[in-house]
Amino acid sequence: MSQAADILAGATAGDRRLLARAITLLEARNHPMGASLTHAAVRRRNGPGAPHVVGLTGPPGAGKSTFVDAWIAAARNRGERVAVVAVDPSSPFSGGAILGDRIRMERHTGDDGVYIRSLSSRGHLGGLSGATSEVVDLLDAAGFDRVLVETVGVGQSELGVMEVADTVVVVLTPESGDAVQAMKAGLLEIADVFVVNKADRPGADRLARELERSVALDEDAGWVQPVFPCVAVEARGIDAVIDAADRHLAWLCDAGRAGWVDRRGEGRVRLCLDLVCDLTRAAAAEGLRRDGLDAAVRAGTVSPRDAAQRLGEPWTR
Amino acid sequence: MSQAADILAGATAGDRRLLARAITLLEARNHPMGASLTHAAVRRRNGPGAPHVVGLTGPPGAGKSTFVDAWIAAARNRGERVAVVAVDPSSPFSGGAILGDRIRMERHTGDDGVYIRSLSSRGHLGGLSGATSEVVDLLDAAGFDRVLVETVGVGQSELGVMEVADTVVVVLTPESGDAVQAMKAGLLEIADVFVVNKADRPGADRLARELERSVALDEDAGWVQPVFPCVAVEARGIDAVIDAADRHLAWLCDAGRAGWVDRRGEGRVRLCLDLVCDLTRAAAAEGLRRDGLDAAVRAGTVSPRDAAQRLGEPWTR
Repeated sequence: MSQAADILAGATAGDRRLLARAITLLEARNHPMGASLTHAAVRRRNGPGAPHVVGLTGPPGAGKSTFVDAWIAAARNRGERVAVVAVDPSSPFSGGAILGDRIRMERHTGDDGVYIRSLSSRGHLGGLSGATSEVVDLLDAAGFDRVLVETVGVGQSELGVMEVADTVVVVLTPESGDAVQAMKAGLLEIADVFVVNKADRPGADRLARELERSVALDEDAGWVQPVFPCVAVEARGIDAVIDAADRHLAWLCDAGRAGWVDRRGEGRVRLCLDLVCDLTRAAAAEGLRRDGLDAAVRAGTVSPRDAAQRLGEPWTR
Repeated sequence: MSQAADILAGATAGDRRLLARAITLLEARNHPMGASLTHAAVRRRNGPGAPHVVGLTGPPGAGKSTFVDAWIAAARNRGERVAVVAVDPSSPFSGGAILGDRIRMERHTGDDGVYIRSLSSRGHLGGLSGATSEVVDLLDAAGFDRVLVETVGVGQSELGVMEVADTVVVVLTPESGDAVQAMKAGLLEIADVFVVNKADRPGADRLARELERSVALDEDAGWVQPVFPCVAVEARGIDAVIDAADRHLAWLCDAGRAGWVDRRGEGRVRLCLDLVCDLTRAAAAEGLRRDGLDAAVRAGTVSPRDAAQRLGEPWTR
């Protein structure tokens, strides 16, 4: 416990090695020191304030990492301290791509105002979004102004990670991500800001118009998602996106407006329920074995629903 | 309860209207009559036998529905009774595409040996895979030899649906699904059989070779996933795929072989734990409100992990 306090004190005071150590402890499934770290970190957090958590997602090949790279440079010009959390659903196959991304971002390694870390923690309590949320709290305590959460894939668990973000930026390109494919992947429903990257290529205008049309269908939402052309590899168009993200955060935090929803608060409640789920799932697995229900469920002689009701009964009455 | 028994009796005796009614009851979240139906249906199920549940998945545009259509025709030639469950993650945007698919399959509507149904039940206890699993049990009781479960998307919840299947067929095309993209989406990890659809188009041979190379990397698995070229729209190559699926089922059920895993049994246990999760999540949400923890978690003054441990404590000690 006192060791956790030391690690946390060092990590939040700017010691990179201890910050990395603390995140590794949070990544480990159900590590008791990880729990102490989050308790301490959440207490340091003051109110609904900093940092602004920006989720970046989009189909593979959309240039998300290049975009993040350009964002970091632009943010540093504004004097902001930026942390990047790259979430990897830890498929054994995607290792190569991630490694490449990290190497590309290494040009910021000498800079104390930038921290880049990839996270691959399928086994974490509360899932990927749980781990991400706790790491974001820690980076908050370490004084970063903005945390960019970048996901590699577009699966359901990566969409879940985006629930941690205040503002979700969806990056598409004329080639990989036509609007219809993005719809199918559920990206249009979670976007707050759209980026049409590689906007110097054919089809970029058409994609931007399609997105603007889909957005116009959804006017009731109050926030109309803006669409920005970008050429991330030349750092063109990034500042407009950052400004829009700032406007979105201000809109989000404006508790006075009609239809205000406490998104951050709802995210914390959802994470809490996910954690309960994980705890009771483990207890139920034990109960199945203890009560000898295991074999009957396997054989199909007791239905999964019957067994679940029996196991869950003392907890739900 | 007696009404549930009547519905079940009719549904399993071949009454299409009552079969549709029974599935609708299963789709409704936590409907008590749905529970009675599953209890009854699971009791009719005899042993590890029929039906063979085949999952069909792949990227959008791979021609999955055309492939299913061709499979149905080939299966009818063999005298099999086939049911198709098309799983829709119920995005408001995908309605159109599904409708089109269903219309295409309507040519089988006059045939009593074919039953086609789409399923869109995000709110179901145990999630999409829970609903699918219970519907499969019902179709089993109704005497179908083979149930094809087709997913529309490639998100995490659709991959979860594939856990219900005995045999997973992944459909790719030279255009939409190059092997690398399929890897990123996690499709290579779940496939038992590969289909390269639209095999008359350029790039099909290259894709087939890439798949065969990836498969060869994974020799320890015991089952080497075969790769079949197909032109579904002309019903070319379907029979070889059905034969391979039969071989895979035989391999799967061969409890005598080294490294045998009771996949069906594990699926039932997993579903049971998912159901427990849903039940306790609902109870914990109530507990948060009752104990007044709700506001503290929202505001960030109590960490989600602390609150979860407190709520879960009586259940996990």
